[in-house]
Order: sequence, then structure tokens, then C-alpha cells
Amino acid sequence: MSPSTTRSAWVNVRGDLPVPPFPAFTYDALPGRVVFGVGAVGQLGEEVDRLGGRRVLAIAGKRAIDGLVERLGGRWAASFTDVQQHVPVEAAARAVAAAAAAGADCLVAMGGGSATGLAKAVALEHQAPILAVPTTYAGSEVTPIYGLTGPDGKHTGRDLRALPRTVLYDPALTTGLPPEVTGPSGMNALAHAVEALYAPGANPATSLLAEEGARVLHDALPRAVADPASLPARSDALLGAWLGGASLAAAGVGIHHQLCHLLGGAYRLPHAELHAVVLPHAVRFVAPAARPQLARLADRLGVDDVPGAIWDLGRRLGTPAGLAELGLAEAELDRAATRAVATVVQTPRRAGVSELRALLGAAWQGRRPPPT
Amino acid sequence: MSPSTTRSAWVNVRGDLPVPPFPAFTYDALPGRVVFGVGAVGQLGEEVDRLGGRRVLAIAGKRAIDGLVERLGGRWAASFTDVQQHVPVEAAARAVAAAAAAGADCLVAMGGGSATGLAKAVALEHQAPILAVPTTYAGSEVTPIYGLTGPDGKHTGRDLRALPRTVLYDPALTTGLPPEVTGPSGMNALAHAVEALYAPGANPATSLLAEEGARVLHDALPRAVADPASLPARSDALLGAWLGGASLAAAGVGIHHQLCHLLGGAYRLPHAELHAVVLPHAVRFVAPAARPQLARLADRLGVDDVPGAIWDLGRRLGTPAGLAELGLAEAELDRAATRAVATVVQTPRRAGVSELRALLGAAWQGRRPPPT
Repeated sequence: MSPSTTRSAWVNVRGDLPVPPFPAFTYDALPGRVVFGVGAVGQLGEEVDRLGGRRVLAIAGKRAIDGLVERLGGRWAASFTDVQQHVPVEAAARAVAAAAAAGADCLVAMGGGSATGLAKAVALEHQAPILAVPTTYAGSEVTPIYGLTGPDGKHTGRDLRALPRTVLYDPALTTGLPPEVTGPSGMNALAHAVEALYAPGANPATSLLAEEGARVLHDALPRAVADPASLPARSDALLGAWLGGASLAAAGVGIHHQLCHLLGGAYRLPHAELHAVVLPHAVRFVAPAARPQLARLADRLGVDDVPGAIWDLGRRLGTPAGLAELGLAEAELDRAATRAVATVVQTPRRAGVSELRALLGAAWQGRRPPPT
Repeated sequence: MSPSTTRSAWVNVRGDLPVPPFPAFTYDALPGRVVFGVGAVGQLGEEVDRLGGRRVLAIAGKRAIDGLVERLGGRWAASFTDVQQHVPVEAAARAVAAAAAAGADCLVAMGGGSATGLAKAVALEHQAPILAVPTTYAGSEVTPIYGLTGPDGKHTGRDLRALPRTVLYDPALTTGLPPEVTGPSGMNALAHAVEALYAPGANPATSLLAEEGARVLHDALPRAVADPASLPARSDALLGAWLGGASLAAAGVGIHHQLCHLLGGAYRLPHAELHAVVLPHAVRFVAPAARPQLARLADRLGVDDVPGAIWDLGRRLGTPAGLAELGLAEAELDRAATRAVATVVQTPRRAGVSELRALLGAAWQGRRPPPT
């Protein structure tokens, strides 16, 4: 089930082979129930019942927890509100203990990727289905990928017990997201869709979802930032986030995600903002090895050049342009490139230290990438 | 999990409501592993191992069974070759007994929809995972829908135990299909893709798969009929069949499938040919209630009018044009319309006896449907 074990000739994963005349791929489709629409959160109780949940551990930050508990009514057993970015292992251990103490038979997480991530960490230790109610564009709710951060850094893995069984997407829950959260979170979702196009497990089905996800996000995010209360814009953006997350969940990740993971862990840079900064430069780097995929995407987006269009989108959304703006010292770039070469996947284009240093340098400066 | 329990405002299922400004739907994504490509059947043993199969019941018609047994090697435990259309209950009972006698822990079906259908019937009684190796465009291999035919007709149902866990799609296995099988089987696959666009559970993800499936089939089937040995044409056609089956599996069916089910059961008409005949007329009938979906599809196919284009495709493939050609007496049409009104779903357009009689009359004559 690991993306690294899949084989795919649908995309030219090595970047040095001719594209075959017909597709060959292995695809592990993931199960999952999605309830989408304005007002979908009103079905929370019914959907918990469907999972057989009678004693729910409610997981949400302090601002969201009261509303969640109220919606759960008699199904509520306990709450856990210490939701932190990157899921520290000690917080996860306390949440597992809370689930055990409450005899929880269902985990309901409402919030961003950190709330979902905490529920995943609990599900790995305390067997119970997860119902996720995402309020950002994190995408984690449709993947079996989990992350835990200990003293030696962040470790990620893939486990079907961490895959939420049901996801309620309610655009009305996202109208309160300010532009400074909407922009980076949306760019993070876009990164899922774009990388799914050339990830190791890409196939015709995941690529269809990814292209549509990217198209919808590219169209909707500027509208959601300009008018945060717009339900049509919020609905489209959430739809795009779902499609992006779902395509990445099956297709796997490429160099962009590996780089962001490394930089985020080593320098504690903010997750979504980091994705927003790196994405145009990572896509520019892989472009020579993913020409057919990016040409199709450019056509769907109605743009000339995908890396430049992603950079332009960031400017319209007001996201940070460069790693310098995020506070990374230029002196760290050499070391980061050296570390990266040992850990990043070489997909879809091989990268040595000098290529990675150039990519990081471009992301640090944050200028518009040159046309491919 | 039944499509009848899903709600969807993504398509206007009643045909009398305005299309909402943003989507609302419930989607139960199905799990499943797909290995696709020329030579994929070479991975049969490895994929059986992956399912934990050590004692396989091989299910295939007499012409295919020897090759299948050879590929299974030491994993083979027993064979069942009495594969018949519509899965008679007594044949299913004998296959269940054969699985039990052999202590089968895996069911491998190679062939068309009848072989897959028999494996499904066995899996409902004898718990074992199914691995399917389809050699036509039936699509059944990616759905949890099963059918059994007894003295009182054919009954269908939906059960996740009937969903194959792994599907090996190998286009090289289909180069021997003669045009008279390729054409109707391909039109049956096209029916899956087209009906998925306006079925009760249609949603943005299933619609993406369905549109692409229809596009690929419309393009590839004439090439596969003109040059049966063409691997690129066979590869595309099989890809389209997969996408059509997968979209229908989650979205459910509409009036076309219900009508064909009724006619096939009542008059023992050949399954795939029946679909080929009815499809353009059923799509013409629902068109007023599915305008946005059919407009998008026309755009993807590069045609002016979908029902006419489907009829034209049938002529290029050499499939029968009308129910008269399949041997149905015109005198039966009144009775068939009366029976149909009690059983067919009213999706996406309501149909009374007179509408159904008109639809059946058009399908009986088999003339090109007028523009929508």
C-alpha cells in the first residue's frame, strides 16, 4: 500500500524514458465516505451513528470544541483540545490516554490538519474509526498519511488505521478563515494536486482528480480571499482541496513534499506558508521531466506556464514569496541542500546537491520562476 | 452503501429543480487494487500471494481455463468451468460447493462478465477474496453489484463481499475478441460511463471518471473493431471500460440500466447487444433532465449531440440497431412498458407508461434519435 512500492509508466517517473504508447500502472484505490455541502455538518450525529459511535472523543481546538460537543449531544464522551502543529508525541500520548479513559469508540476531529493529525495518532494506538470535519484546505482527512514529532524530528508514515472513515465537508465552516490562512492553506492544497500529477503512483484516475482539483483551486482561491464569506467560492475551494488530497493519497508525493517536510522539520517553518513558497520553484525544477502532465495542466488552468502561474497565484493570495520572508537564513541553504540530497525522492527528476541548492536558492529569493 | 440511499444535488436528480450554485453530495468511494498494462497477467501469482491465496478456485470458461491453471501453478486447488450468462442459481450452488470442497481461500475469475459474476455469487456464500482478470469490457469487476437468475427471473443486489479485491487488466488478453463481441461489449461499457453522469450518486469525482471513460471508449472502440490486434486501441478501450465501471459502481444506475435489466430478464435478450440498442434512445429520453451533464460530455466527445453520436458509434461498430433485430416482437412493447413503469427508477427523468412505450418503440425501430 506504500506509494514507494507502486510502479507506474503512466508518468515517466525517471524522466529519462520515452512515454509509453499506452498506460501501465498499479493503483490502490482508497475507501472513504464523503458528505459534502453547505450544512453537511448538520449530519454529524447521523454519520457518527453510521460508524457505530456511541462514546465519542471530540478533538478540536479551544474555539471549536464547544460547538462540536453540542452537536454530538449524547454521543459525546470526552474532549481533547491540546491541538498543536506537527502532532508532538507527548500530546498524542495524552490523547490516547484520554480515548482509553473515556472508552471512546469513535474519534471526531474538527479543525485543520493538526486536529486531523492528532486523531490519526490516536487511531494508531486506540482502535476507533475517525470522522473528520475539516475547516481548512489541509487534505489530510482523505489520506492514510500520519506524522508525529518527537525530540529527533518529525516522522511520517502510512497506515490505513489512520485514514478517516467519513469526512464531512461543509463550506459554511470555512467562511471565517481569514485571507492570511486561506491563502497558504489553499496553496498547500494546490501542492497536493500538482504533485499528484507526477508522483510515483500517478495513474489516469488520480490525474483526472488532480487536474480538476488544481483547476478549481486556481479559480476559487482568489475569490475566497477577496470575499471570505462567499459560499460559492468556499464551496469550490473545499472541493478542490478534497480532490487534491484524494489524488495525492493514492498517487504519492514528489520532490516538493519531501523538500518541505525536510525544511519544516529542520527549521520549524510554518507548514502551509512553506508549501506556498516552495511550490512554484519545485514545479519549475521538475518541469523538464513532467512536460506532458504540466502541458495538460496549463491547458486546464488556461495559463502559458504552470510554475509562473502558481507564483502569480501566490501574489494574488498575498502569501509569502520567499524562504527569506519566512525567516530562514541564507547561510543555511548549503547545509539544507546537502541534507536534502540524502532524503528527498528523486521523482520525477533526479536532483544532486547543486540542483537542490539552486532550487532552494530560487525559493529563498522568491522571484518569479523563468518560463519552462 | 446502496446508491438508493445517497443524496446528490450535484446532478438535478428530479429533473424539476434548479441546479444549485454549488455541489452537495454523498460519495462512498470503493476500495480496490488495479494492475493495468500489457503483460499485467504475468503478475497473477504475485497478486494472488498478496491476497494471501494458497488454494485458488479457478473460474473460467473451457477455452481459458488451462492457461489460467498453468499461471496459478502450485496455488491452484480446483477449477470451475460452467460459466453461463446471467449466473443461474444452480450453477452458482455447484461453484460454491466446489469452493468448499477445495478449501478455496481465493477466487480467481478470468473472462467476461459471466465469469466475474459467478465468482461474486461464490464469494457471497464462501468467504474468499476475488481476483478478477477481465477479458471483455464488462466493468463488473470493479462493482459490488451481483446478479443471480432463478426460476422467477434475475435478481441483482449490492454487497461489498462481491467486490473483487484486485483486478488485473491486460490489454493483450483482449486482442482475440472479434468485432462482433468488441462492439456490443464496448457499448455496454459506454452505457456505464454515460449513465454514471446522471445516476443518483453522481458527484464531481465519479463524473470526471465517467466523462474520461466515455471519451476514451468513443475514440478507441472503432479502432479496436477495425484492427482487433492493435494494442494501443485495446489498451485505451480497456482503460475506458475500467473508468466507466468504476464511475457507475459509486454513482449508481439510471433508467437505461433498469430498462435493459427488465428486458433482458423478461425476454432473454443478449446482454451487451441489448445495451448497445437501447442506449442512444434512453439517453435521448433523459436528455431534458440532464442537459448540463450531456453538454459537457458532447464537448468532451467533440460531437454536437450525445444520443445521435452514440447511435452513430453503434453503426461504426456494427452493433444491432433495434430491438426488432434482436428478435423482440413489436406486440410485446405495450406489456414491457407497463411492466417497466413499476420497476424502473425515475432517474433522472420521470417516466410514465406512455413515455416508456415511446422510448421502447424508438429502440425497437432503431432509427437515429432526433437532436435534443
